[in-house]
Amino acid sequence: MTQQTIKVELGDRSYDVRVGAGLLDSIATTVVELGSVRQVVVIADSNIASSYGRRAVDSLDAAGVPTVMFEYPAGEANKTLASFSDLIDSIFAITPAIDRDLLIVACGGGVTGDVAGYVAASTLRGLRWVQCPTSLLADVDASVGGKTGINHASGKNLIGAFHQPSGVLIDVETLKTLPVEELRSGLGECVKHAVIRDATLLEFITSNTEAIFNCQSDVMCDLIARNVAIKAAVVAGDERESGQRAHLNYGHTVGHAIETIVGYGTISHGAAVSLGMVAANEMALSRGLIGQTDASRVRETLVALKLPTSCSGLNADQVWKVMQKDKKARDGKVRMVLPTEIGKVDIFDDINSEEVAHGLTVLG
Amino acid sequence: MTQQTIKVELGDRSYDVRVGAGLLDSIATTVVELGSVRQVVVIADSNIASSYGRRAVDSLDAAGVPTVMFEYPAGEANKTLASFSDLIDSIFAITPAIDRDLLIVACGGGVTGDVAGYVAASTLRGLRWVQCPTSLLADVDASVGGKTGINHASGKNLIGAFHQPSGVLIDVETLKTLPVEELRSGLGECVKHAVIRDATLLEFITSNTEAIFNCQSDVMCDLIARNVAIKAAVVAGDERESGQRAHLNYGHTVGHAIETIVGYGTISHGAAVSLGMVAANEMALSRGLIGQTDASRVRETLVALKLPTSCSGLNADQVWKVMQKDKKARDGKVRMVLPTEIGKVDIFDDINSEEVAHGLTVLG
Repeated sequence: MTQQTIKVELGDRSYDVRVGAGLLDSIATTVVELGSVRQVVVIADSNIASSYGRRAVDSLDAAGVPTVMFEYPAGEANKTLASFSDLIDSIFAITPAIDRDLLIVACGGGVTGDVAGYVAASTLRGLRWVQCPTSLLADVDASVGGKTGINHASGKNLIGAFHQPSGVLIDVETLKTLPVEELRSGLGECVKHAVIRDATLLEFITSNTEAIFNCQSDVMCDLIARNVAIKAAVVAGDERESGQRAHLNYGHTVGHAIETIVGYGTISHGAAVSLGMVAANEMALSRGLIGQTDASRVRETLVALKLPTSCSGLNADQVWKVMQKDKKARDGKVRMVLPTEIGKVDIFDDINSEEVAHGLTVLG
Repeated sequence: MTQQTIKVELGDRSYDVRVGAGLLDSIATTVVELGSVRQVVVIADSNIASSYGRRAVDSLDAAGVPTVMFEYPAGEANKTLASFSDLIDSIFAITPAIDRDLLIVACGGGVTGDVAGYVAASTLRGLRWVQCPTSLLADVDASVGGKTGINHASGKNLIGAFHQPSGVLIDVETLKTLPVEELRSGLGECVKHAVIRDATLLEFITSNTEAIFNCQSDVMCDLIARNVAIKAAVVAGDERESGQRAHLNYGHTVGHAIETIVGYGTISHGAAVSLGMVAANEMALSRGLIGQTDASRVRETLVALKLPTSCSGLNADQVWKVMQKDKKARDGKVRMVLPTEIGKVDIFDDINSEEVAHGLTVLG
């Protein structure tokens, strides 16, 4: 069976991302390799606790590693300090009392990984953790970079930590039970990676669309490995997000604004990013950074994936106001990442409201 | 006026600890030097908010740095997730919304520093912070090492992060209003530093006892700078506490157990460490690691400082049981740091209950 390993290079915080079919059944091997793990807590998304969570627990049980599983109630709405606190309480209720050789395994989508990772970051000032994402979005995005956290009433991910995992296991078999809308959402991020770093990835997506939607294991392994490698290279150059890591925000500045306006959950993250990329490309086109051929090529890929490229009823003023409040904005000054060709982007600090309004017109 | 700077060497997380009289009045200089600080939140211990907290705010106001102050309700009992959450809420209620150029200033004793530092670690996945300790214990201990955190019902400091400050300002003037018991508590840690690394520091303490209790600025600067330098050297070699940083636990294994048994707050931390050192020295004496002269010398210093060297009614079995639950214990196996001469210690993994019981007999 195909298996690929991508190393995320972060000095003494480096780790491997393994991608393959059926990897959850051998998670114990990865855990044992880490050394001096005496106990494991699996924090599993309630949607998959009894399936994939159980498989991880079974593998660890079979290897004789004492393991308990706690469920995280799936969903963005539960990504709160209260859930964090509940999980911490459960961990400290374990007898005998846990110590620093406890390892956390996060099993689930991006939300579960964010919360479980933050629990790992915060317990005894930092426990090791292994991430087992079970959605395509988490596979290609959250699995690299060590961002963990929870939401606050004032906004998403406002409380958290950078806490790199000790390893990531991506079992592509888990994608077979993923709702197609969630698969699509992950594909939005894949297109983003292609546009910011690798034009050939766009071709790969276009020519393998059917196999992707069928979750054909070898194709999924390649797709995920390529995306992980791109994100790993970006993050390795800029762990704490001061420079080129901002390139990953391509499609996200307008995308986040749309998510905020239409309401989180109403639209998938990847769909919002899809719209954000279309608007950003239109702006890049107006600036003469890219030509119509490039803009159309990205748009056609999104259409082929059935990701949205239009969104009616958006108010440009409202979008602009939300963009100014983005946590990456400074002093109300909006920064955007725009493509200069397929596979390359730049950061622009001189974005104005008229330009954004023009970018939005293409969403119809 | 004397001013001393000690660099804590931690690669790209290195920072300076400045020690001097009146430094709080020039905190703005330190903050401006850090670069791109656009706003400051001073988190001040409610005991000193209107005095030292205000002085920090005034300095920042005078320099034109937008600053708000939030009070942390002084006391270990408030070192909770609830206080943490309240502070985070206050920070996100600031208008215009904060961004990553917000700097947190922690002004107060060790508890305030721990909570405020953890707030800094967690807000937007890590804000820069400057620590302004106002107790001798925080000056010589919490100011170096980046340990931040809060308590959990299951134990102290169980939730937290390693988050190095961008700088530490120790204004020795703040010690003039410190209750003498708290001064003494800090001196317990100073004796600990002397025993683990520097016999001449023990002499310095002995020959300057009067000046220390009078908080004579030049002597306090020297005392604190020497202690900070010792702790900085230990931490620089072992940021995340896997090796020699454990030397700092000298006096703490038994000390923590005593604190737990008699109840936190009943006895100061330094007093508990004093008792822990006396017991550890007795154990070292029995093992033939040190001679009676060394043990007596440490004991006499503690007596001169009016730190306790006896504690009636301790039950050895109970102490042992608590020691086995220490978060640094593994598998119920107790590790202790014992002196091999004044200025040197080693870690011992083969501690048994009889030995501890014998160590405790000397506490009478």
